[in-house]
Amino acid sequence: MTTRPPAEVGMPLEAVDTPALLLDLDAFEKNLTRLAAAAAGAGVRLRPHAKSHKCPVIALRQMASGAVGVCCQKVSEAEAMVYGGVSDVLVSNQIVGAPKIARLLSLAAQARVAVCADDAGNVAALDDAATAFGVRLPVLVEVNVGADRCGVEPAEPALALARQIAGSRGLRFAGLQAYHGGAQHIRDYARRKEAIEAAAEKTRRTVELLRRHGLACELVSGAGTGTYPFEAASGVWNELQAGSYIFMDADYLKNLRQDGTPGSEFTPSLFVYATVMSRPAKDRAVLDAGLKALSVDSGMPSVAGMQDVEYLRASDEHGKLTLHDPGRALPLGNKVRLIPGHCDPTVNMYDWYVCCRNDRVEALWPITARGAVL
Amino acid sequence: MTTRPPAEVGMPLEAVDTPALLLDLDAFEKNLTRLAAAAAGAGVRLRPHAKSHKCPVIALRQMASGAVGVCCQKVSEAEAMVYGGVSDVLVSNQIVGAPKIARLLSLAAQARVAVCADDAGNVAALDDAATAFGVRLPVLVEVNVGADRCGVEPAEPALALARQIAGSRGLRFAGLQAYHGGAQHIRDYARRKEAIEAAAEKTRRTVELLRRHGLACELVSGAGTGTYPFEAASGVWNELQAGSYIFMDADYLKNLRQDGTPGSEFTPSLFVYATVMSRPAKDRAVLDAGLKALSVDSGMPSVAGMQDVEYLRASDEHGKLTLHDPGRALPLGNKVRLIPGHCDPTVNMYDWYVCCRNDRVEALWPITARGAVL
Repeated sequence: MTTRPPAEVGMPLEAVDTPALLLDLDAFEKNLTRLAAAAAGAGVRLRPHAKSHKCPVIALRQMASGAVGVCCQKVSEAEAMVYGGVSDVLVSNQIVGAPKIARLLSLAAQARVAVCADDAGNVAALDDAATAFGVRLPVLVEVNVGADRCGVEPAEPALALARQIAGSRGLRFAGLQAYHGGAQHIRDYARRKEAIEAAAEKTRRTVELLRRHGLACELVSGAGTGTYPFEAASGVWNELQAGSYIFMDADYLKNLRQDGTPGSEFTPSLFVYATVMSRPAKDRAVLDAGLKALSVDSGMPSVAGMQDVEYLRASDEHGKLTLHDPGRALPLGNKVRLIPGHCDPTVNMYDWYVCCRNDRVEALWPITARGAVL
Repeated sequence: MTTRPPAEVGMPLEAVDTPALLLDLDAFEKNLTRLAAAAAGAGVRLRPHAKSHKCPVIALRQMASGAVGVCCQKVSEAEAMVYGGVSDVLVSNQIVGAPKIARLLSLAAQARVAVCADDAGNVAALDDAATAFGVRLPVLVEVNVGADRCGVEPAEPALALARQIAGSRGLRFAGLQAYHGGAQHIRDYARRKEAIEAAAEKTRRTVELLRRHGLACELVSGAGTGTYPFEAASGVWNELQAGSYIFMDADYLKNLRQDGTPGSEFTPSLFVYATVMSRPAKDRAVLDAGLKALSVDSGMPSVAGMQDVEYLRASDEHGKLTLHDPGRALPLGNKVRLIPGHCDPTVNMYDWYVCCRNDRVEALWPITARGAVL
């Protein structure tokens, strides 16, 4: 059952019911334009990650601003995008198991769809299924460039898998997936830059080895919000996959405060709107937004515009605030905007963006890939 | 958009797509019966918390096993219960703001519905709305018995609010809400017992003060899975609100291992079913279940039946496993069952329970209050 929207178009912000996921359209559009301009300036393609927003409306806005398509992590997420009008999707992940592979190929027959692989058995399964479907599926080899999560090791192991793909009947070798997720959240600017330099070296070495063996990497795709200027300037990557830049979150903001750049060009646009539902003590207020309204995996949210108010602890349906300034008035019923610690899993809890401009609800956008984990 | 179910009835467990939320029906039914028997044995009413399961099918099973009704935290959750056939709901929380109060009263005209309060202004708002609706709404005073979250302080402040309720036109004073959430997860048995003894003393004192002022507490409601035997035996509480007992989770299991009792009578029945989607190194496997498939706020999940396999880290769509035993075979495509660190926010990510018995899918239950945060 899709939940009802917590607002109606035209409503003043103050009347929006809570908890609600707010999108500040001015900030969102600024972020949209800025990364598009940065990618164009650097001469690299932009393919933003839809796992952050899970909303075809936003994907189409990104493409209208110059993105070539979007990334997805799951087949069901890609289905929501393609059936929402998005014509070009890279599944930047491994797809394992016959039911998911069949759905991936069905989608590849309807739109430009590519996928990543890091395993010979998986490549064989993709090949068999693509051949049976009569679809030629573009496949990128995922290379472990430092995250130590998925991916084959650089150079020889990547070459072996690329050769298998290139030599298959149903697949087409399309390039490399080289994403260093861990680097995005390294607080220190210099160390973050070094991590991407090391990733660039591994990627460059792999691209050159493949080229010497007659395998051209049409795509070298990767990068995220915390590091994209490094990848864009490297001469190695030709496609950026940043996702969080349209929203930002409290964790990314911790990076930015420390170093100034890069990323400081983006503004928080995503908020969880919450109501004070209990004021049991002078220094304590309780909000109606807890673990089912925001994800705390990367730390507690911050309270927008109130540095003296701390979101101390989340329980299932409550957020406990500590009021450090005894002069802070925050009476029962007051509404506050929280900047979530981590935008992606927070968005995944909601069915609607309440899109606002000048403190008025301008649109309600459905999050059609909410819960799309299959 | 409700997500498609990841299984079909009759399917072998092995064929269920992942990530999926599995409910082991044998374990679930055992847990259901055990707490019902314990409550009956202690002569207290049982009103399990529906915030854990968010599913009217489960609520009706609980009532068929002897529960008097369920608790909810949100009006939208209560709507899902009442419209799913549940006739008696206590909203064990404060409901603030005119739109939510109107929906609460609409519901109170259709079923037995009660609510909690901890603020004079909120009681006045409830009273005005109930009078306008022509509904007499039962209200419990929430008392802070140690959690330091919501609730008025014991004794005099509780008396003042109870008097206001009793003297109102539209409300009926129904008793006390006295829940100590923090105590549920105190690892040490003796300290956990002490916390509830302190809560019992505060509650008893308040009940007696109210009685001396002519205000009888029809209900004294509270308790959770980690402490309910203490509340049941106290002679103070007459209604138990445990929720997690039907599922259990990795965090509750950490309590149990340490002390043996209470709670060891419950068996894990809730699992996130996940697939190995990458095997990039001998000691590393990656699952398709990360932060959007399970909540890590109370720690990482454990891998059922594999003590040598550790769920090290969750990213948005990936779960990184460390294989401590080099002899452990866990090839690509293998499926494992994870015991989530925290059941409630994990359930809130899914639209379906895949209910299994003897490794076969017996039913698919819709989680109709998924995302019901309003």
